Amino acid sequence: MTPISKRVGVLGAGQLGRMLAIAGYPLGQKFGFYGMSDDEPSALLGHMHKQSDDTDSLQKLVDFADVITYESENTDVETVRKISQTTPVYPGEKSLFVTQHRGREKGMFDQLEIPCASYRIVDSLESLQLAVDEIGVPAILKTTTEGYDGKGQFVLKEKEQIDEAWKSIGGRELILEGFVEFHRELSIVAVRNANNEHVYYPLVQNVHHEGILRYTIAPAREVSEEIQQQAELYMQKLLDELDHVGVLTLELFETTDGLVANEMAPRVHNSGHWTIEGALTSQFENHIRAICGLPLGSTEPRQPLAAMINIIGETGPVEKVLTMDNVFLHLYDKAERKGRKLGHINLIADDEESLFSLFKELSDFLPK
Amino acid sequence: MTPISKRVGVLGAGQLGRMLAIAGYPLGQKFGFYGMSDDEPSALLGHMHKQSDDTDSLQKLVDFADVITYESENTDVETVRKISQTTPVYPGEKSLFVTQHRGREKGMFDQLEIPCASYRIVDSLESLQLAVDEIGVPAILKTTTEGYDGKGQFVLKEKEQIDEAWKSIGGRELILEGFVEFHRELSIVAVRNANNEHVYYPLVQNVHHEGILRYTIAPAREVSEEIQQQAELYMQKLLDELDHVGVLTLELFETTDGLVANEMAPRVHNSGHWTIEGALTSQFENHIRAICGLPLGSTEPRQPLAAMINIIGETGPVEKVLTMDNVFLHLYDKAERKGRKLGHINLIADDEESLFSLFKELSDFLPK
Repeated sequence: MTPISKRVGVLGAGQLGRMLAIAGYPLGQKFGFYGMSDDEPSALLGHMHKQSDDTDSLQKLVDFADVITYESENTDVETVRKISQTTPVYPGEKSLFVTQHRGREKGMFDQLEIPCASYRIVDSLESLQLAVDEIGVPAILKTTTEGYDGKGQFVLKEKEQIDEAWKSIGGRELILEGFVEFHRELSIVAVRNANNEHVYYPLVQNVHHEGILRYTIAPAREVSEEIQQQAELYMQKLLDELDHVGVLTLELFETTDGLVANEMAPRVHNSGHWTIEGALTSQFENHIRAICGLPLGSTEPRQPLAAMINIIGETGPVEKVLTMDNVFLHLYDKAERKGRKLGHINLIADDEESLFSLFKELSDFLPK
Repeated sequence: MTPISKRVGVLGAGQLGRMLAIAGYPLGQKFGFYGMSDDEPSALLGHMHKQSDDTDSLQKLVDFADVITYESENTDVETVRKISQTTPVYPGEKSLFVTQHRGREKGMFDQLEIPCASYRIVDSLESLQLAVDEIGVPAILKTTTEGYDGKGQFVLKEKEQIDEAWKSIGGRELILEGFVEFHRELSIVAVRNANNEHVYYPLVQNVHHEGILRYTIAPAREVSEEIQQQAELYMQKLLDELDHVGVLTLELFETTDGLVANEMAPRVHNSGHWTIEGALTSQFENHIRAICGLPLGSTEPRQPLAAMINIIGETGPVEKVLTMDNVFLHLYDKAERKGRKLGHINLIADDEESLFSLFKELSDFLPK
């Protein structure tokens, strides 16, 4: 072990853990995972502690680790609190507690004067009716916790849909969010370490289809210096308020009135996958640096333009991808299933024309 | 498993296996290793089959693997021959047989009309005396097999040293090589897959100290198009003659009479480590592509200049490396030991001045 080497325990064993490990081994780190099965994307990339193995498997990961991190904002806060008594967990409990609940998240946006959609927490048909009267339609009803890739959401176009909406996802705590008119969806990935260093990647532009991120352009086109600084200011406030250590991602809407926060994730993010080849330091390496108490790396792009295309549901003609220049394949070793993220393709280009021509060649991987 | 995924078994579990795995997982490949201990650099990066486990551990690796490769040209040919009866081994037996013996290697250079030093195989004091009479001094006496990083060599400056030389490394088959006057040491990494695709990285310049590679500049400065083509022609002949599948590396001397072959290795090579961030496709990824029957990736550099500095013996001030831009750390998770390769640092630069200033900042890692 070198002076900078640590044993990193990851709660989860999916593609994020896999890419954290691939980025972390070159720094001399060792990895362990707490997951479900030996078929998961991270299973071969370190010590695998399965939930099913025995009741001690989580403790075994904790015993192995110098520092613990997690793949998902849906990680149990109580578990993290308990682990924290013996082993540091980054990002910390507060980051997890706030980001796993849309109401708390919006509350923090308000507190820090970061613009976001108007919202109401509802827990009954009656409170939903009241909220719709206040917020108006169109509005989006969401579960306050869990829900990703468009799951657990209902778009209320008319007041007459209230019953239907409550039947569809109600019976639990929900949040009604006012509809935000936006030109496009952006996101920003930022990193903070325990020494209070902050670094920010450029804003990127994200295109979703059926609730799932399909591709990212990095940096987002036509973003003024001012808008980038605005986004960085929001991130700085959030990182500091959360005392966040690790990567934090904020999804934003670009509107005629400026940036409006949508939601945040206390982790490496799909919209940051382009950084593997696209930036001087990837989001994965910077997350590992941050949680291991190391200096953060440069977030500079390595070329004028980069992009990321998700491989969704079917693996598709990946062999063709290998015949193309300036294109990098990242498979997660997952079985095909509708809507599932199986991998992604990173692209680099000197200009928009070159990028567009790569997109054309990769049209099999884009939504029809 | 995707259509391009294979299970790769590696004979050896050192840093080369480690970097092959880090490059191969994103293509959806799985890895297994046949090694000595759980402390080896690859041990956490796939299924580890230890020689000490039981007599079946090699067979277990073979049973796991769709294809087998190896880390070292000193791999036992008989073992490879046996494995080949059930599972493809790349590079094949011929590549291994020729490259693990300096006499056979030189024989192939002669056969393919690739210039190399004059040489004689000797197996006794008498035949050594005869060889020195024919080749003259200075000359270098080497073991025909094994020997790396300057081990198993004796520089004969005067004829009077014959006894001393034989005592020092004799009592086994040796090769006496004529001394080549050279300006500098170059090397070229090339790749061939089973579909007979060939790709070549640019010639790089290598600087050794006490027999160990200390740094590489890529591409080598002031190499004419003609010299690059000459090197590629030599590689093409060697790849085809060996029916080689995978990476092949050739070390060359640049002399006033042109390129002179020194030795070759049937594997990814220390002088190709710069390709991880420096080229569109790394030597490690291209080796995996080649042995898995996939199309080869572009060998184009991603920037005007790159370099690699080895971390030898002591880990040194690696935390400082993390504070520098355009610099990438690669540690192998090995304990410190004199002369041991513990990791390397990759550098990228737009021009010689920038590269030089990075070298200055990293002088702790360079020979005094």
